[in-house]
Amino acid sequence: MTDYTQIRYAIADGIATITLNRPDKMNAFTGIMQQEMCAAFDAIDADDAVRAVIVTGEGKAFCAGADLTPDDGRQVFASEDEVPDLADERVRDSGGRLTLRIFQCTKPVIAAVNGAAVGIGATMQLAMDFRLASEKAKYGFVFARRGIVPEAASSWFLPRLVGMQQAMEWCMTGRVFPAEEALAGGLIRSIHAPDDLLPAATALAREIADNTAPVSVAMTRAMLWRLSAEEHPMMAHRIDSRAIFTRARSADAKEGIASFLEKREAAYPDKVSTDLPDFFPWWDEPDYK
Amino acid sequence: MTDYTQIRYAIADGIATITLNRPDKMNAFTGIMQQEMCAAFDAIDADDAVRAVIVTGEGKAFCAGADLTPDDGRQVFASEDEVPDLADERVRDSGGRLTLRIFQCTKPVIAAVNGAAVGIGATMQLAMDFRLASEKAKYGFVFARRGIVPEAASSWFLPRLVGMQQAMEWCMTGRVFPAEEALAGGLIRSIHAPDDLLPAATALAREIADNTAPVSVAMTRAMLWRLSAEEHPMMAHRIDSRAIFTRARSADAKEGIASFLEKREAAYPDKVSTDLPDFFPWWDEPDYK
Amino acid sequence: MTDYTQIRYAIADGIATITLNRPDKMNAFTGIMQQEMCAAFDAIDADDAVRAVIVTGEGKAFCAGADLTPDDGRQVFASEDEVPDLADERVRDSGGRLTLRIFQCTKPVIAAVNGAAVGIGATMQLAMDFRLASEKAKYGFVFARRGIVPEAASSWFLPRLVGMQQAMEWCMTGRVFPAEEALAGGLIRSIHAPDDLLPAATALAREIADNTAPVSVAMTRAMLWRLSAEEHPMMAHRIDSRAIFTRARSADAKEGIASFLEKREAAYPDKVSTDLPDFFPWWDEPDYK
Repeated sequence: MTDYTQIRYAIADGIATITLNRPDKMNAFTGIMQQEMCAAFDAIDADDAVRAVIVTGEGKAFCAGADLTPDDGRQVFASEDEVPDLADERVRDSGGRLTLRIFQCTKPVIAAVNGAAVGIGATMQLAMDFRLASEKAKYGFVFARRGIVPEAASSWFLPRLVGMQQAMEWCMTGRVFPAEEALAGGLIRSIHAPDDLLPAATALAREIADNTAPVSVAMTRAMLWRLSAEEHPMMAHRIDSRAIFTRARSADAKEGIASFLEKREAAYPDKVSTDLPDFFPWWDEPDYK
Repeated sequence: MTDYTQIRYAIADGIATITLNRPDKMNAFTGIMQQEMCAAFDAIDADDAVRAVIVTGEGKAFCAGADLTPDDGRQVFASEDEVPDLADERVRDSGGRLTLRIFQCTKPVIAAVNGAAVGIGATMQLAMDFRLASEKAKYGFVFARRGIVPEAASSWFLPRLVGMQQAMEWCMTGRVFPAEEALAGGLIRSIHAPDDLLPAATALAREIADNTAPVSVAMTRAMLWRLSAEEHPMMAHRIDSRAIFTRARSADAKEGIASFLEKREAAYPDKVSTDLPDFFPWWDEPDYK
Repeated sequence: MTDYTQIRYAIADGIATITLNRPDKMNAFTGIMQQEMCAAFDAIDADDAVRAVIVTGEGKAFCAGADLTPDDGRQVFASEDEVPDLADERVRDSGGRLTLRIFQCTKPVIAAVNGAAVGIGATMQLAMDFRLASEKAKYGFVFARRGIVPEAASSWFLPRLVGMQQAMEWCMTGRVFPAEEALAGGLIRSIHAPDDLLPAATALAREIADNTAPVSVAMTRAMLWRLSAEEHPMMAHRIDSRAIFTRARSADAKEGIASFLEKREAAYPDKVSTDLPDFFPWWDEPDYK
């Protein structure tokens, strides 16, 4: 799938950029946009040349939330009479389909938030690893102001990122707030002048891509999100022991030590597509039901 | 139960205020106070006119801890010989009975901490959503200085609010510390001049009450506390998918979208007492045992 | 085991100090060092005279990571052919053996980080309660720059200490960063001039040792780490109810209340070696497998 209609997808120097591309609609989120973003993440995971991902928005907004108008290809919602079983796949929130896909990505994902990020425009970022914002960015977890609830699995992600008191305030008031408040609350990593935003995101992507082993980064991403949520550190010990044992014998580790001792840049040979350990994934991905 | 003897309970403009009311005892906590607070939270949940709750103290203190004198109606502790089974209901900590009751409240709960908050005076606040403090407030998780341990389920709540290093320092030293340290450590949301404390708490309550749907806030409160504690975001996706599917078809959502497009204040028709989704609660509340 | 060769172990005024002692190797970590540290923690837990632990490094570094040279008594790694079953005990990461041992310690553990703390030098600190750093300290979670992955169960510990966005940045970039960044990110508690580091660590240890009951501190340490990781606060309520019920009837609690009312220093009689509640530990420690 490469004929994207609501996003742009480009790769340069090992960094993929997904640009939400409905600027006349403030990049409002649709079912098509969700499918295209998921397809782009499939392409990213399948392409060993991609070392990091930047997600940004075309025009003034990052993403102003779900498109509320009926003419954008969104799946028309079935009625409750037609779908009496809430375990039906048709009930699944499209924002959650996207964040769970991002959650499984094997590359670092950087949000470069150029403007308003409201509703799903805010919550889609929570499954990304880093949020860099323009001075013009603003955020809103506005669900309670629309008669609905936080979605896209944000009730799992947001308290882990910003703590419970801050998460409750943003979700319970539903207010729109500026980048400064997002930074003070721990939601975003840094604020940049509009022209400096993409360069800053690119610099962070480069710092990772130029210095680290791809398999190590893919493992790190899965380990931190998944093992920190376990009840006991023993599960982390089980997995990282296996990972250290196998990775320490890898071509990457040989190159990591050699390049360190020789004080030169490393050239890691192992690939995410073929060289993740046999025990990866170590978890059973749960179904929606 | 309306003849409260150790608290006051009042409602104004949709905001309930619980005032701990033993000022000559620094509002020291007793079994009666616990029962009266739990009764007030029952009244709050049953009353759709109540949109938010403020908890504060009469006089100089917020709550100076458990009453250590034997004349205050506290249940006289049974001996270990009389209650050999620690799963006996009589073993249950009264502070925990209170925080678990607050945990289940369907309305936002705001602590307006006017003075000393020590022991259960500090830990009872952890199950509330927001802590606003007077410049005169001070906190103490003093249990280790009394030969006992943190109670009221604070070992679950405190690290989620302030991180582990800070939680350990306050609980391991048992020291009493000022509002500034509570703010720097992430325990409280903001500090106010004494005369500005209740107005600030009221303003936050109003921001929620005036702009949001009651059912949305009740759902948000349960979702953030409960779903963030799950091991995988899929549980959040299951619940928020069901919630979005059903709430998107609700009268509240119609009003939320209509008022947004018409740029007017919303008047949400749905009530917490009758309009929570059928699948709420989605969890089995565990027993003490 | 008292003939330590790679650490020093000393006790003064109830505070044990473990000093990593390979200054000519920047205190690089070996299998022997791991065994000696675990033995020291065994001694600490068995000795009621020890109320707190300080871990620091001899010379310029705290610990520069795993020793990469083959002449330091490290267990020579078996090959994957020899150990085909990753559940084999020989696969276990030695850093994780150490952090899980520290995790179980019944005394407060303070890292006094005098210099570079890289790799296991950084991750071993995460199972300690407090990290105080010299202005000369620097940190590095460098695993992805060596072709391996975060170890020592750090994927469980680090996000709980600093939040997910910060944990991802340090682990995904693998960069070495100064004490100021560690403080801003919530990793360390405080920064000190080099000469003030051990006095500050000692002052914190003294504040705990001089004011609190040893059994209370041991219980607090286990409760905060373990109960905060449960899915529901009811488990905390079960355990702290039992703990309050039994400890409230203890000699420590009598002394705690008496000394408080008499405004004098407490002298707690109960000992960690003999007076932990019968229900402690309340958990089944999981096996590596």
